[in-house]
Amino acid sequence: MNAQPSDVFLATQALSADVTRPIAGSRKVYVQGSRPDLQVPMREVQLADTPKMFGADKNAPFTVYDTSGPYTDPAADIDLTAGLAALRAQWIAERGDTEQLATLSSQFGLKRAADPKLAEVRFPGERRPLRAKAGMNVSQMHYAKRGIITPEMEYIAIRENQKLEAIREAHLLKQHPGEDFGAHLPKLITPEFVRDEVARGRAIIPNNINHPESEPMIIGRNFLVKINANIGNSAVTSSIAEEVEKMVWAIRWGADTVMDLSTGKHIHETREWILRNSPVPIGTVPIYQALEKVDGRAEELTWEIFRDTLIEQAEQGVDYFTIHAGVRLPYIPLTAKRVTGIVSRGGSIMAKWCLAHHKESFLYTHFEEICEIMKAYDVAFSLGDGLRPGSIADANDRAQFAELETLGELTQIAWKHDVQTMIEGPGHVPMQLIKENMDKQLRECGEAPFYTLGPLTTDIAPGYDHITSAIGAAMIGWYGTAMLCYVTPKEHLGLPNKQDVRDGIVTYKIAAHAADLAKGHPAAQARDNALSKARFEFRWQDQFNLGLDPEKAKEFHDETLPKEAHKQAHFCSMCGPNFCSMKITQDVRDFAAEKGLNEDEALAKGMEEKAAEFRAKGAEVYQPE
Amino acid sequence: MNAQPSDVFLATQALSADVTRPIAGSRKVYVQGSRPDLQVPMREVQLADTPKMFGADKNAPFTVYDTSGPYTDPAADIDLTAGLAALRAQWIAERGDTEQLATLSSQFGLKRAADPKLAEVRFPGERRPLRAKAGMNVSQMHYAKRGIITPEMEYIAIRENQKLEAIREAHLLKQHPGEDFGAHLPKLITPEFVRDEVARGRAIIPNNINHPESEPMIIGRNFLVKINANIGNSAVTSSIAEEVEKMVWAIRWGADTVMDLSTGKHIHETREWILRNSPVPIGTVPIYQALEKVDGRAEELTWEIFRDTLIEQAEQGVDYFTIHAGVRLPYIPLTAKRVTGIVSRGGSIMAKWCLAHHKESFLYTHFEEICEIMKAYDVAFSLGDGLRPGSIADANDRAQFAELETLGELTQIAWKHDVQTMIEGPGHVPMQLIKENMDKQLRECGEAPFYTLGPLTTDIAPGYDHITSAIGAAMIGWYGTAMLCYVTPKEHLGLPNKQDVRDGIVTYKIAAHAADLAKGHPAAQARDNALSKARFEFRWQDQFNLGLDPEKAKEFHDETLPKEAHKQAHFCSMCGPNFCSMKITQDVRDFAAEKGLNEDEALAKGMEEKAAEFRAKGAEVYQPE
Repeated sequence: MNAQPSDVFLATQALSADVTRPIAGSRKVYVQGSRPDLQVPMREVQLADTPKMFGADKNAPFTVYDTSGPYTDPAADIDLTAGLAALRAQWIAERGDTEQLATLSSQFGLKRAADPKLAEVRFPGERRPLRAKAGMNVSQMHYAKRGIITPEMEYIAIRENQKLEAIREAHLLKQHPGEDFGAHLPKLITPEFVRDEVARGRAIIPNNINHPESEPMIIGRNFLVKINANIGNSAVTSSIAEEVEKMVWAIRWGADTVMDLSTGKHIHETREWILRNSPVPIGTVPIYQALEKVDGRAEELTWEIFRDTLIEQAEQGVDYFTIHAGVRLPYIPLTAKRVTGIVSRGGSIMAKWCLAHHKESFLYTHFEEICEIMKAYDVAFSLGDGLRPGSIADANDRAQFAELETLGELTQIAWKHDVQTMIEGPGHVPMQLIKENMDKQLRECGEAPFYTLGPLTTDIAPGYDHITSAIGAAMIGWYGTAMLCYVTPKEHLGLPNKQDVRDGIVTYKIAAHAADLAKGHPAAQARDNALSKARFEFRWQDQFNLGLDPEKAKEFHDETLPKEAHKQAHFCSMCGPNFCSMKITQDVRDFAAEKGLNEDEALAKGMEEKAAEFRAKGAEVYQPE
Repeated sequence: MNAQPSDVFLATQALSADVTRPIAGSRKVYVQGSRPDLQVPMREVQLADTPKMFGADKNAPFTVYDTSGPYTDPAADIDLTAGLAALRAQWIAERGDTEQLATLSSQFGLKRAADPKLAEVRFPGERRPLRAKAGMNVSQMHYAKRGIITPEMEYIAIRENQKLEAIREAHLLKQHPGEDFGAHLPKLITPEFVRDEVARGRAIIPNNINHPESEPMIIGRNFLVKINANIGNSAVTSSIAEEVEKMVWAIRWGADTVMDLSTGKHIHETREWILRNSPVPIGTVPIYQALEKVDGRAEELTWEIFRDTLIEQAEQGVDYFTIHAGVRLPYIPLTAKRVTGIVSRGGSIMAKWCLAHHKESFLYTHFEEICEIMKAYDVAFSLGDGLRPGSIADANDRAQFAELETLGELTQIAWKHDVQTMIEGPGHVPMQLIKENMDKQLRECGEAPFYTLGPLTTDIAPGYDHITSAIGAAMIGWYGTAMLCYVTPKEHLGLPNKQDVRDGIVTYKIAAHAADLAKGHPAAQARDNALSKARFEFRWQDQFNLGLDPEKAKEFHDETLPKEAHKQAHFCSMCGPNFCSMKITQDVRDFAAEKGLNEDEALAKGMEEKAAEFRAKGAEVYQPE
C-alpha cells in the first residue's frame, strides 16, 4: 500500500534554491561509453579567449570531475518522492545473478514498514529489494577476479580520465613529476586497469545492488583521491528534509561519498529518503542504529540484533558499512592510560559491550557471517578504527596498531569471500608520525584502500579543525590514502550547519587535489595550469569558474572591487592599478618575446638598443581600460 | 614644532572594543629577568580542577607565548598619540654606541616633517632619531659575535621557554620524539644559546634602535616557528586609524611580526603611527614607497631615491627591510616562459627598471652601501624572493633558484658587515617539491633563517588560499623554515578585512605549531596535552581557553548547546547524551583502574567476575547532571 508523506513534509520536500541553483560558470556534460545507457557525467567550464595583448589564445573548455548528480542538470526532472532514475538497474538485471524478494528480510524492516504511525515520514512506495540468488556472489570484486569488466568499471574509467586526452594538449604543457611512493598512476585509466585494481583489492567500487541510482565511483590509491562528507541527525537536532538537503548540498560541493551517521529519530526512514535520492555511495555505521534499538544500553546489544540491522540496511541499499570488528577484548585495557581514551563512538560502544560480557566482540567472532551478508548485496566493508587516537598524545600507540593488525587479518577473510574492503584510519597524528601509519597500513592490510579522518596535526585549534586536519589529510593522501573523511570547523564542538559542511568539503577537495598533484596524477596539474593562466591574463571570471568554489571567489573579489568593469581590470584591490606585478610582468614578457630572446640570447646580444626601444614604447605600468 | 592631529583623526584614534577586550580565559603575566626593567610578557590560562569522577587533579595554570603587547594588559595605560613605553631605550643607551641626531637625515623625511598640509595626519611630537656613532656597528649580530649577551637576548631566552620548567611536570607526561631534520632544539633556551645562534647567523633579532617600544623576539630554525601578518593600505582603500587598528588586531591573534605594505596615501605617516604603537617588529618593502615618490614610474627610480628611503624608514624605526637584490638583469628573461611570470610586486618593479636601463639592479650593485646603512640602525635584511613562483607550474624553476643562489652570495656580504639577514621564499610549490626548497636554501644561504609565503600547494582554490598554503607552510616549517608569512582567504582576490586577518593568523598559528610539534620542540606538545585532557574531562571552558581562538570555539559550541548548564555537559550536540564516546571511555578507564588492571593482568585474571560487577554498578552511559 502506498504511504503518503504528511503535509508538513511535502511542504518542505522541495529542495532550497541554495542547492539547486546552477553551478556558476560550468555546465553538465555527459560522455557516452560503449552502450547508450552508459553516460558519464562531468562538468565543463567554458573559458574566454586570451586577451589580444597576452597572445589571443583560444582556450579550450576545461572538464572537471562532477559529484553533484542530476541536481545540477537543468534538463533533469527532480522529484524527491520518486527518487532518482535507477541508472544501474539494467546492468544489474543483465548479470542474471539476483532475484527480487517478495518481502523485506529483516524483522525490523518489516516492523517499520507495517507501522501506521510512520506513514508521514516513510518514503513512498513499497520496496522489494534484490538479493543474490542462492550460492551467487554479486560483489564487483567477485566479477573482477573472474576477469569480467562490468559496465560500472567502464563508467569509472571514463569518469577518472576526465577527458584527459582533450585537455592534455591544451593545459598540460607543464607537469612536474610526482613522488608516488610506489603507487601506479597510468597516463590513461582503462576499464581493464579498473578491473585489475578491484580484483587485487587495491580499489573498491561501493555500489549495493539495491542502490541502482548511484553513479559508479572508485576508491583506491591509484585513482583520484576521494573525499567523504558526513550528514545525519542527532537527538538534539535536524529533520529528514534537512538531511536530504544536506546530502544534495554536500555532493554539490564535491563529496564523493556521503555517510549518514544519524543517531536521532527515524534513522531508518531518513536513510531511505537519502538513498533513493543519492547519486553517490552512502555509508553507515550500523552499530548506531542497533544501539538505538536497545535504547542506548550497549550491554544489551546482541549479534542477532546487529545481524538484522545489517540486512535491514543492506536491503535499503547502503553501499558500505563501518564495522568496528577490530575492537577486540584484549585491546581495550590498552586504552586505559590514554589522554583521550576511545573517541570513536562505535569503538566505545563495542568496548562497553565487551567489558560488560567478558567476551570477545561479536563483530569479530561473527565476521564470516557478516561476509555472507555483504556478498549477497555487494556492500563493502569499511573496517572501523574504533581505537584511533583522539589526541596527539595517543597517536601511534599500541591500542591503535593492535587494531590495525587485526583489520589486516580480517581483510584477508573478507577477500576470501570477495567482499570489497577498505580500512579506516586516524585521527590525531603529528606530522612526523603520519608516514608510519601509511606504511604500516599498506603492509598489514595487503594494500586495501585506506580511508582516514584527517588526521589532525595538532589539538590546539577547536573551531579550525578542518584546517588542522587538512594538513594531515593532504600528507597522508600524498603517501597513498585513497579517501579522506572530511572534518568541519565544528569538530569537537557540535553539529555542523550548511556553511560548515561547505567549508569542510572545499577544504578536503583542496587536500585531495594537493595529494593528486604531489603524487603526479597525470590529470591533476592541468587545472592549476588553466586557472593560473586565467589569473595571469586577468580573465577573472575564468579564474573564479575554474576554482573549487566559484561563488566565494567572486564574492571575495567583489567585496572591494564590485563593478562589472573590474572584471576586466588588470589589477585588484590588493595593489591597485599602479602596482600590479602581473601587469609589469607582461611588459617583461612582451619585451623578451618581441625580440625573440631566450636567456642566452639576451645575455649575448647586449641589450642597450633594446632598452632604448622599451623606453620609447612608453613602458606604461598598465593599459588604459 | 608639535603638530596636532586633526579632529577627525582624534575621533577615530581610540581603538575599537574588538581589539581591546580582554582575551578570554587568560591573563597577562610577566616573568622578570636579571634586572627590574626586563619583564617578559606571557599569558597564563587558569584551569579548573579535574572533576572528581575523572580523578580530581589540580590542574596547574598553563603559560602561552604572547604577542599581543600592552593592549591586553588591563593595567596598561594606552594612548595612541603618545605611543608605547620605550622599554628598550635604557638598554640601547647603556651600550653607549649610539648618538641622537639633531635632525632627520633623509631629505624626504625632512620634507614631510616640514609640510603643513600633513599636520592632520602626523604622529605628534618631533622625532630625533638615534644612529650609531661613527665607526660603530649596533646590530645584535655584532654584539653576539663579540661574545656579548645583550638584555634583548636574555629577554628572548625567557620568552622562548614559556616557563617550560613549570609546565613540564604538569603537562609533558607524553611527548613524541620529533623529526628535526638536523635542527637543534635544546630542552631549555639559555641567553648564551641565543647569542650563539645570532652570532652564527642562524637566527635574527629584528629590533631597530629607533624602535625601542618593541618586545624582543627571535626568528630562527632552533626556536619556535614564527608568523608574520601583513597590513597596509592601497590606493583603493583604508585609513591610518584602520591600519593601526589592524596592527593591534593582528598581534592580538598571534602575529609575531607585522609588515606594513602600504602603497596608498601617507605611507610615511601611517608607518610612524604603527611603529610608535607596535610591540612587535615591523617590516617594510622600501621599494614600494620609493616607487610612490616617482609616481609609479619604475624606470625613474634611482639609487639615490632608494637610499634616501632606506634612511627615512630606518630613522623611523623599521626593524627589517625586504630588498629584492636578487632580481638580477640576466635572470629576468628566465621568467618569460612562466605561466604567471613575476608575481612579486618588488620583483616586477626591479625587473622593469633593469629592462628600461639595460643595467644590473642598483640594489645588487649598491648592496654594500645598503649594509652600511643597515648596521648603523640595526635593521635586518629580508632578502626578497622577487622571482618566486606564483603558480604550481613555475615552482622550482631556474629563475627562482638563480635568485636563491644570489641571495646566498649576498648573505655572506651582509654577514661581513654583521648585518642580520633572513631569506624570503616561495610561493606556490606542490608538496613533493617543498623539501628541495628547504635543503637548497640551507645549503646556499649558510643556514640563514628562511621566511616563506606559504607555500600554496595548489592553485585551484581562490577564496581558500589560507588553507592551500597552510599545508605547505606546516610542512616547510617542519623542514626548518623559521618564519611563515600568512596568507588570508582574500589572497589573489582583494584586500583582507579584519575577519580575513583573523582567519589568516589563526591558520598560520596552526601551521607553526604543527611544525613545532613535528620537530619535537620540547614545549610544544604540552599545550595539545593540556587541551585534550580538558576535552576528555568535559572541562569545556578550559578546552576553549587553551585553544588558539577561545572566542570562536565557545561560539561554535554554543550554536547548538547554548545554555550555561551545557558547559558542564558530558556530551555535545554532535552525539547527544547517549552516544558520547568519551563518556563511555571513562567507564572503561574506571573499570581498568579500579581493578588495578594493566593489559597483561586483564588477560591473565579472567574477567568474568569483573564483568558481573560492572553490570551491577549500573553501567550508565552518562551521569545525571
